[in-house]
Amino acid sequence: SPAPSLYHPQIAKEVAKLLEMKAQLGEDEGKHKFVLKTPKGTRDYGPKQMAIRERVFNAIISCFKRHGAEVIDTPVFELKETLTGKYGEDSKLIYDLKDQGGELLSLRYDLTVPFARYLAMNKITNIKRYHIAKVYRRDNPAMTRGRYREFYQCDFDIAGQFDPMIPDAECLKIVHEILSDLQLGDFVIKVNDRRILDGMFAVCGVPDSKFRTICSSVDKLDKVPWEEVRSEMVGEKGLSPEAADRIGEYVQLHGGLDLIERLLQDPKLSQNKLAKEGLGDMKLLFEYLTLFGITGKISFDLSLARGLDYYTGVIFEAVLLQQENEHVEEAVSVGSVAGGGRYDGLVGMFDPKGRKVPCVGVSIGIERIFSILEQRLEASEEKIRTTETQVLVASAQKKLLEERLKLISELWDAGIKAEMLYKKNPKLLNQLQYCEDTGIPLVAIVGEQELKDGVVKLRIVATREEVSVPRESLVEEIRIRTSQC
Amino acid sequence: SPAPSLYHPQIAKEVAKLLEMKAQLGEDEGKHKFVLKTPKGTRDYGPKQMAIRERVFNAIISCFKRHGAEVIDTPVFELKETLTGKYGEDSKLIYDLKDQGGELLSLRYDLTVPFARYLAMNKITNIKRYHIAKVYRRDNPAMTRGRYREFYQCDFDIAGQFDPMIPDAECLKIVHEILSDLQLGDFVIKVNDRRILDGMFAVCGVPDSKFRTICSSVDKLDKVPWEEVRSEMVGEKGLSPEAADRIGEYVQLHGGLDLIERLLQDPKLSQNKLAKEGLGDMKLLFEYLTLFGITGKISFDLSLARGLDYYTGVIFEAVLLQQENEHVEEAVSVGSVAGGGRYDGLVGMFDPKGRKVPCVGVSIGIERIFSILEQRLEASEEKIRTTETQVLVASAQKKLLEERLKLISELWDAGIKAEMLYKKNPKLLNQLQYCEDTGIPLVAIVGEQELKDGVVKLRIVATREEVSVPRESLVEEIRIRTSQC
Repeated sequence: SPAPSLYHPQIAKEVAKLLEMKAQLGEDEGKHKFVLKTPKGTRDYGPKQMAIRERVFNAIISCFKRHGAEVIDTPVFELKETLTGKYGEDSKLIYDLKDQGGELLSLRYDLTVPFARYLAMNKITNIKRYHIAKVYRRDNPAMTRGRYREFYQCDFDIAGQFDPMIPDAECLKIVHEILSDLQLGDFVIKVNDRRILDGMFAVCGVPDSKFRTICSSVDKLDKVPWEEVRSEMVGEKGLSPEAADRIGEYVQLHGGLDLIERLLQDPKLSQNKLAKEGLGDMKLLFEYLTLFGITGKISFDLSLARGLDYYTGVIFEAVLLQQENEHVEEAVSVGSVAGGGRYDGLVGMFDPKGRKVPCVGVSIGIERIFSILEQRLEASEEKIRTTETQVLVASAQKKLLEERLKLISELWDAGIKAEMLYKKNPKLLNQLQYCEDTGIPLVAIVGEQELKDGVVKLRIVATREEVSVPRESLVEEIRIRTSQC
Repeated sequence: SPAPSLYHPQIAKEVAKLLEMKAQLGEDEGKHKFVLKTPKGTRDYGPKQMAIRERVFNAIISCFKRHGAEVIDTPVFELKETLTGKYGEDSKLIYDLKDQGGELLSLRYDLTVPFARYLAMNKITNIKRYHIAKVYRRDNPAMTRGRYREFYQCDFDIAGQFDPMIPDAECLKIVHEILSDLQLGDFVIKVNDRRILDGMFAVCGVPDSKFRTICSSVDKLDKVPWEEVRSEMVGEKGLSPEAADRIGEYVQLHGGLDLIERLLQDPKLSQNKLAKEGLGDMKLLFEYLTLFGITGKISFDLSLARGLDYYTGVIFEAVLLQQENEHVEEAVSVGSVAGGGRYDGLVGMFDPKGRKVPCVGVSIGIERIFSILEQRLEASEEKIRTTETQVLVASAQKKLLEERLKLISELWDAGIKAEMLYKKNPKLLNQLQYCEDTGIPLVAIVGEQELKDGVVKLRIVATREEVSVPRESLVEEIRIRTSQC
């Protein structure tokens, strides 16, 4: 149900009175000092961070395009009621806009619900799209570990009625490609299925009404040990100790095709319709992943639950493994960098006639990846360029501003990336220093003699070599000397 | 001062009671019908719109990079007080977030104020950066003409203490390059200077206290005729008819270097210090623009005022000119597509010691450009591709899903953009039709005979030609046949 709001006229009047009281009380609070900062849980991206961000985005977008995805964009806010009832307990983390007259709005919490709204609104039953945009959660930020209140999500989803597990397998292939491409170190992709979880709960004797809450206890197993989760189930959630112990046996299992086969033979699970369906599809999924050659990084893990309410089938989550130091043998999980799953019911929640559009998708958790790459770059000696400038237009003597402006204009018009110092008479040394500082590889120097001779002196910053280039071949010469191939 | 909030304990208690009342009353209000839409003044971008958007962004970003700009990003919201007092009357259009505890926040209204906040906060005195992001204004939307409540701005700014008019001239060169590159039709860039306006107001006998309000009357001259503006000045704003008439003589002037020279000789204007400074700089600007070869599209226009409070020197605005139909001789302005100017005081408003960082910048009004290109595309027969897929992996017979999965995986791993239909046994005709519909140029067909022979049949969709390609040369063959060069 929607959060209570203040928009009944009777209440609005009372609130206005109270606000007036508050304003009067406020006057005694002394003068307020302006703080120069970004809002809590947010940050600016400077040019260096943006350079890293663009590298990561390029890797991800290339992958999405390689898989034939289209791209869409939706507004940063939605009608408040569009988000209502989609996130369970997490709804309290949604940012609402102030009622300034007109519609009640909220900032988007993820890209999946706006996608489902988009599909239903435009009656689209079939699309493969990606969407890269910021989402907003009033969570407790842990910014050093890449947890923000404003953060990017990079989502790829396949909507449509298809033969089982083919799109699902492609989503896992995509996660595998992106994480391999970004060279973040070793990783594992945990896979499970909501139907297997529900079937497991049923055969363990969990009452139907407790499925969701027990599921959210299981979801904590990547952070806290089983003993703690068990006592939450029994103590707080009132599950019988026997049921908890039966769950305990299952959720500690993980493996591959062999485990799936074993569970298909499990006398209890195999009797449960949902679990059997889920296990059958899981087997099919693993067959496809074998054809993709990626099962080495995939783990069928019965403890994977994922919090969001809307999943209905396969769920998955990719975690980076890190050797904390060389003496520690066991690989340590440093947190999730991608996740997703199948949500066949969400679009139907928006369709006036409840028509379903099956969907499966993956979301790449880009902020944690940024954090890792940022820290790695800082630790290394690598100097990252923040511009692409190919040449600085410089002068060797005074009174040559006009000549510099003429030359740089020619270069810009020819598509050359060029800069000059915004000074009438800059010193040559300062101009050369600027190239050193910013990584510009070439300097085109105009001087009186060169102007007479119809040439430009081209200096290669790295080698300090200087060549005289006829003005009419300068563009070509710069292109050749800065081409990457 | 910040808006009143509800977090005084005394008030919080009262509010809680009222909310309870509200909840009870709410139950009587009957069932509310959910509306499937985006918020007022916003829209989704589907794949086609995104394809156009990416073309435009690429043109703009290429230009910004050609001029050596770095890129930054800032949060979508700022502390409310960061925006306070920067936009004059337009402040009422700012979107505030609901007070949910913690800081009071507002959505950004433009990218200039966040940029100034970023400079002051990080003590940056020298940067050339661009920023492309959405901004938010609770304005009356006119969406068919490209006016939205959520819209993109593409800003390029140069901050730093430099020799006069060199960065200012570059900003105008950038507008000229972008509008030429996008082929939107004929355009003119109007230029003026706040100092010339203020000097003109002074010599016309406008009292100091009326400068801003008279300036905002002048700003309307691109939409309403002089007579109407005059009557606003005299009637509503209490200016003497003589002063208004003197202004009237000036603001109808526009031209180039000749006009600047004439005004430098003007017996009244030349006596005013501000006007003289502004005219001197305007002359210098035109000299630089002559070297850039772009004065043909620049008009020094004394009626250009621009609304925002923070400008201190040069201001400019680019408008598209359109022959409404061939019989109309006079070119008609269809609205501003870029604007900007110098704002030397804004950063100082954020610096605790008031240290100034001179800035000049340009903002490209991308939404109006989108509207034009979208309408143009719809009117034309051009079919725009929304994916970059090079090849569809297809099968000629049944039971070849596994073989398709193996082949597509090889192609993806080799960096080829490939798709397949998510069906176990798709018909060949349906697979070929999919290529026709989506513009995929090649089909790689696996069949039983081909598998035996170690080849793949490659079909060129446009010509219906089919060639047999050894499996090991398939990637190379696809690359050659889809390379753009």
